Amino acid sequence: MSAGSNKTRVPETGGAAEAAKRARAASRKLAVISEQQRNATLLLAAERLEENEGQIVAANAEDVRAAEALARAGKMSQAMLARLRVTEKSVAGMAEKVRSVARLPDPLGRKLSVTELDAGLVLTKETCPLGVVAVVFESRPDVVPQVASLALKSGNAILLKGGSEAAHTNESLMTIWNSALQESGMPSGAAQLLHSRADVMELLQLERDVDLLIPRGGKEFVESISRQSRIPVLGHGEGICHVYVHAAADLQKAERIVLDAKTDYPAACNAAETLLVDAAIASQFLPRMIEQLRAAGVEVRGCERTGAIVPSGIDAASERDWATEYGEMILSVKIVDGLDDAIAHIHQYGSNHTEAILTEDSAAAERFLSEVDAAGVYHNASTRFADGYRYGLGAEVGISNGKLHARGPMGMDGLTTYKYKLRGSGQTAADYKSAKKFTHRPL
Amino acid sequence: MSAGSNKTRVPETGGAAEAAKRARAASRKLAVISEQQRNATLLLAAERLEENEGQIVAANAEDVRAAEALARAGKMSQAMLARLRVTEKSVAGMAEKVRSVARLPDPLGRKLSVTELDAGLVLTKETCPLGVVAVVFESRPDVVPQVASLALKSGNAILLKGGSEAAHTNESLMTIWNSALQESGMPSGAAQLLHSRADVMELLQLERDVDLLIPRGGKEFVESISRQSRIPVLGHGEGICHVYVHAAADLQKAERIVLDAKTDYPAACNAAETLLVDAAIASQFLPRMIEQLRAAGVEVRGCERTGAIVPSGIDAASERDWATEYGEMILSVKIVDGLDDAIAHIHQYGSNHTEAILTEDSAAAERFLSEVDAAGVYHNASTRFADGYRYGLGAEVGISNGKLHARGPMGMDGLTTYKYKLRGSGQTAADYKSAKKFTHRPL
Repeated sequence: MSAGSNKTRVPETGGAAEAAKRARAASRKLAVISEQQRNATLLLAAERLEENEGQIVAANAEDVRAAEALARAGKMSQAMLARLRVTEKSVAGMAEKVRSVARLPDPLGRKLSVTELDAGLVLTKETCPLGVVAVVFESRPDVVPQVASLALKSGNAILLKGGSEAAHTNESLMTIWNSALQESGMPSGAAQLLHSRADVMELLQLERDVDLLIPRGGKEFVESISRQSRIPVLGHGEGICHVYVHAAADLQKAERIVLDAKTDYPAACNAAETLLVDAAIASQFLPRMIEQLRAAGVEVRGCERTGAIVPSGIDAASERDWATEYGEMILSVKIVDGLDDAIAHIHQYGSNHTEAILTEDSAAAERFLSEVDAAGVYHNASTRFADGYRYGLGAEVGISNGKLHARGPMGMDGLTTYKYKLRGSGQTAADYKSAKKFTHRPL
Repeated sequence: MSAGSNKTRVPETGGAAEAAKRARAASRKLAVISEQQRNATLLLAAERLEENEGQIVAANAEDVRAAEALARAGKMSQAMLARLRVTEKSVAGMAEKVRSVARLPDPLGRKLSVTELDAGLVLTKETCPLGVVAVVFESRPDVVPQVASLALKSGNAILLKGGSEAAHTNESLMTIWNSALQESGMPSGAAQLLHSRADVMELLQLERDVDLLIPRGGKEFVESISRQSRIPVLGHGEGICHVYVHAAADLQKAERIVLDAKTDYPAACNAAETLLVDAAIASQFLPRMIEQLRAAGVEVRGCERTGAIVPSGIDAASERDWATEYGEMILSVKIVDGLDDAIAHIHQYGSNHTEAILTEDSAAAERFLSEVDAAGVYHNASTRFADGYRYGLGAEVGISNGKLHARGPMGMDGLTTYKYKLRGSGQTAADYKSAKKFTHRPL
């Protein structure tokens, strides 16, 4: 921990249980703060981030120095090192994202339905904050203002645990964030950092004070958290995304999309892992496609039929390949016999994340979009669009592979729930056994 | 198991894993069946239930005979015995409820949002079925057609496990239900009964083939299922509901509502367990209220201040009483010092189920509705209104105490999720790094 810049930081005593209790108390107050006040606080926080960019970059330099030593020793990847680095430009980007959250419509108090149950008895289903949300994430420090701003906008208290490699940067960001919150009269405890792995383990048992846990990390990390936690967990296990080139595809479009889906950012969960190609066009499409993939640095592994088509030969894909999220520049290729075969493969091996069909046959496309069971089903677009910012959600707190509550890129709506407000004038349930009848009229 | 009437019943071989696999296969087909076909199937099933009421009542008589023996031996409560009983009238009621589900608006294919990301790139967030839902419930056989109809209407396959005490009745209902589904060309495996506790234990591990588990039962049952399951669980743990009589309450209304909330059906989760009364009106309100409660057969336990007010004396409520769901004719009473004190008590001891304030002061009421963190927050109405039918949801698959996915009485919407359909014309993510800009225009 860096000394000096920590005057306003959260006290470490008490650990996760104490932090969660403070967060719960703060959440009661946050839930009734006006939209105007929440937005004003976000704008002030954005300003404070920009004003203190020097401090943030300096704190980050400490983290980067330690990380560079790890990278030289082969204990940290260059990609992870790159994600850790914060510049003046990235601070400006963080501030701009906070401002964009302030501009989003208020997610609270939205009336999902209003029903007259009877004269003078009206039921309103209305959005409200979840309460206390905990996010456990790895090295990217820009997660701090991004998630903190989504939480504040949606009236939630937030507990954040970042990776130790970014400890100084996260601490600096949170100190600045909290000084803006304090200045704006937000309840203390609304945004707190947790500091250790022990805190996270303690957190998992705090189901009374934490409403939702969002682990952002690899499949094993998420699964281990889910197994151990008594708190509901939303997170994405893995992204085994497919691009299916249908017989009626425009092959030029297909080449561009396949290249993008695999190579634009192979470590992302929305990158493609398997290319499915209709047998009818395989010999026309695959040789050139594979050549382009290889030219871009992609290792290609193919099914038997693919091997028979590619003149230069190809590594054989095994059963295990179909079920693997490579997360790097490797792509498996399988020739399929039409739409049903492709959908069956996707349902057998996919992870319900994002699946794309490339075709000019709109009937085939619509069948794919309606039959494939995944958070994102795409026609003639790269799987890489699966992202909260690209979807227009402002930002994302995570991507959910599950089907409950939130599915796919999860923005602020994933941090809200609803309550039923019933306004009556003395009604009892017994009245409706015979004397009175429900009207159930939507208002 | 009754012999003879089981010709079309689900084969028992294979157990839960086999049943879940068949359900998953059926769910793929159900997801794309038209609203018209789903509704026609429901109407046919309602008809078949009515036509076969003799068979259902006869099967039920077998269950009731065995249950009566248990009741005589003191091994089954009269209330449970009463819930088990099915008459011609109850079959007509079941059929009518199935028809009312057919009349509900289609929960599938609802466009939750449509966003133009860019020209020729449109994102639609659209409701779709969860897939396979399993419901574990106790003795009320009318749950079978109720839940099966909600599942079919929402395009889900369903696995049902009822109590052994209703085995013949459930079997008969499901046989009739499935013959109607078969006649209507629905996929086989769309609705299946599980038969044993071992099936349920096996079910808990089938996260690949089951999307949601709804245990309907007591708190311990629900918690034990949640702990052991790898499948998401929605259910209500307990209902510790409060009625708070505010200083500005209309005391006559309050008397009627308190009596209703406690005595209308004390075993229900939405019955009141604790009465909170403002100190300012306690001596005026409580003596008469407690007299009325006692006259209705309610055992009253009070805090110290309550004891000092009631002339005839009162049993003392202990700390444990505030945290207890009696589920019977017992009510604890506490005198509080105004709105904040009442809300603090509710947040400390409540179960986030349903909480009511009785007052003629609408500012106090609105503060209560916005500050109290519960699935239902009521003004001048009995907590007993917390119910899917009363809310106008048609019927309920359960009541959720959790905040995620569905909260409170859960109708068909709780059985749906959504997917994002992205329709493009060849776009890659790399295009939007510099060449192109997102429009993010709501359509």
